Amino acid sequence: MQIRLSLVALGLLAASTAVNAVTANEPIQPIRPAGELNLAQVELGKKLYFDPRLSKSGFISCNSCHNLSMGGTDNIPTSIGHGWAQGPINAPTVLNSSLNLAQFWDGRAADLKAQAGGPIANPGEMASNHTLAIEVLESIPEYVREFKLVFGADQITIDEVTQAIAEFEKTLVTPNSRFDQWLMGDADAINDQELAGYRLFKASGCVACHNGAAVGGSSFQKMGAVAPFQTDNPAEGRFAVTKKEADRFLFKVPTLRNVEMTYPYFHDGATWTLSEAVDTMGRIQLGKKFTAEENAQVVAFLRSLTGDQPNFQLPILPPSSDKTPRPQPFDK
Amino acid sequence: MQIRLSLVALGLLAASTAVNAVTANEPIQPIRPAGELNLAQVELGKKLYFDPRLSKSGFISCNSCHNLSMGGTDNIPTSIGHGWAQGPINAPTVLNSSLNLAQFWDGRAADLKAQAGGPIANPGEMASNHTLAIEVLESIPEYVREFKLVFGADQITIDEVTQAIAEFEKTLVTPNSRFDQWLMGDADAINDQELAGYRLFKASGCVACHNGAAVGGSSFQKMGAVAPFQTDNPAEGRFAVTKKEADRFLFKVPTLRNVEMTYPYFHDGATWTLSEAVDTMGRIQLGKKFTAEENAQVVAFLRSLTGDQPNFQLPILPPSSDKTPRPQPFDK
Repeated sequence: MQIRLSLVALGLLAASTAVNAVTANEPIQPIRPAGELNLAQVELGKKLYFDPRLSKSGFISCNSCHNLSMGGTDNIPTSIGHGWAQGPINAPTVLNSSLNLAQFWDGRAADLKAQAGGPIANPGEMASNHTLAIEVLESIPEYVREFKLVFGADQITIDEVTQAIAEFEKTLVTPNSRFDQWLMGDADAINDQELAGYRLFKASGCVACHNGAAVGGSSFQKMGAVAPFQTDNPAEGRFAVTKKEADRFLFKVPTLRNVEMTYPYFHDGATWTLSEAVDTMGRIQLGKKFTAEENAQVVAFLRSLTGDQPNFQLPILPPSSDKTPRPQPFDK
Repeated sequence: MQIRLSLVALGLLAASTAVNAVTANEPIQPIRPAGELNLAQVELGKKLYFDPRLSKSGFISCNSCHNLSMGGTDNIPTSIGHGWAQGPINAPTVLNSSLNLAQFWDGRAADLKAQAGGPIANPGEMASNHTLAIEVLESIPEYVREFKLVFGADQITIDEVTQAIAEFEKTLVTPNSRFDQWLMGDADAINDQELAGYRLFKASGCVACHNGAAVGGSSFQKMGAVAPFQTDNPAEGRFAVTKKEADRFLFKVPTLRNVEMTYPYFHDGATWTLSEAVDTMGRIQLGKKFTAEENAQVVAFLRSLTGDQPNFQLPILPPSSDKTPRPQPFDK
């Protein structure tokens, strides 16, 4: 019995070493579950994320365009904003966005907290402003109580609002994809086609930009490194932030996690299928034409990157009071 | 010990009798939890309810205007539809709508199933059509599998779609309000002001129309029975369905369940506070002017009608396929 236990222990040790070995040698790392978070802020942030009263119309919430039922995106080329305004760029997924080096396609927000205030006050998105948003929240007794409980202050501030939303967004990681199971040592978690796709993904150079836990999100790269990207979209990428000529048409490399759910693709949202996206990337970033078989392999690999989706109760929002500023959906 | 147990048993019996007595004598009945339902249809219907791909834009779902985070309404006077179209009438709550004698303000749909197909094909709401909606669902492999599993047929039909949505909506009852706890025999569940409000609600005649489990929803009544209702809204009510002159300006009596969450009020959505709504109803339906104290009592009673809100995991929607017809958010 003593010997048997030792053998089991040795076996476990060996398996554990094997897992670490696989993981350590791969350019893609498994997504870790969300770490230490302020759960009170998370719960408050979840409500705010779903609350359309942060918009002028009372109709648009964070979840409208970063829909957690749909891969954290809206699955349309560019988003719909106040008055049915057509957005300038494809809404990036909020899933795993805490792993990005910066937020927005051009990285103009340093982190999730800095990002969260933007859409609220953007006239083509939620079309409110921070003063009005705070006035709305301050008029809702349950929010006043909850902010006081969470932040310990009598006044609600936009800083607290964006802090809570960001804290909630940090929970939106998607571990446990089949590919991550494979990375962790389960050789059967992906099939031969998917494995061939991953090998091709590495051998062709895709991993140069799409690497790490998020399979992207860690650098800005020129869209069209080898051949120009054809688009009607006028976005200039990182140049808009730095005004450096070298940054023209550099965009944050998007995460490929859950990419089968985050169509349509690229910053212009003009590409609807993974097959076409892989073909375009090969051509304009790597100067490579994938065969139909290779393309299918890479696509199969990409589909193995879908992880555990957000898993929580639909939040119930506290009702407005008689003093709450009224939404202005049809105000010109 | 024998005697003690018997006394406890007698006590329970007495309490139980008391509960039944209270309930039986009141014109408002407690909401019962949803009864026998097809749970497979419920789960499918929940996804469809949240799926904006049933709209032309890919942006509007049932939940957009009947938001389950906000009392099953959108909390704006009239809803926002495709292209930011302004809806003609206030969106009624979906909560407890299974208890209504018919659906829509004018009762033009006999039941939830008949209602569910309407907004999908309404150009000012979701702006799709039933053929396109089915084509979209048929193109999504996970939906094809789930419909087959739930309905046992190879083809998805609009009949199945509306059946599943309706079955989900039947789960959206809100039992266990403080007022219902009082009805069930817990004398401390409502306070003196709320009880006074309920007595006034009965004595003034409000219960003539707002009665039963839904505190409304069981009849069509003339809006402005005693004095005319002032509104810019052109809706003609039940007349639009029957073309009978006697039905002009008759509307379905709305449920008052969760009424503190379903502002703004009346079919034109022009009244934002419960206090104003109670005042208007007294004046135009009962020929009664409530004092400030009475008004506050009735409002307090109405706030005790908020029950258990929907309590489920945010549904995750299956991704589209390469064959899915693409949304047309900005198509003219």
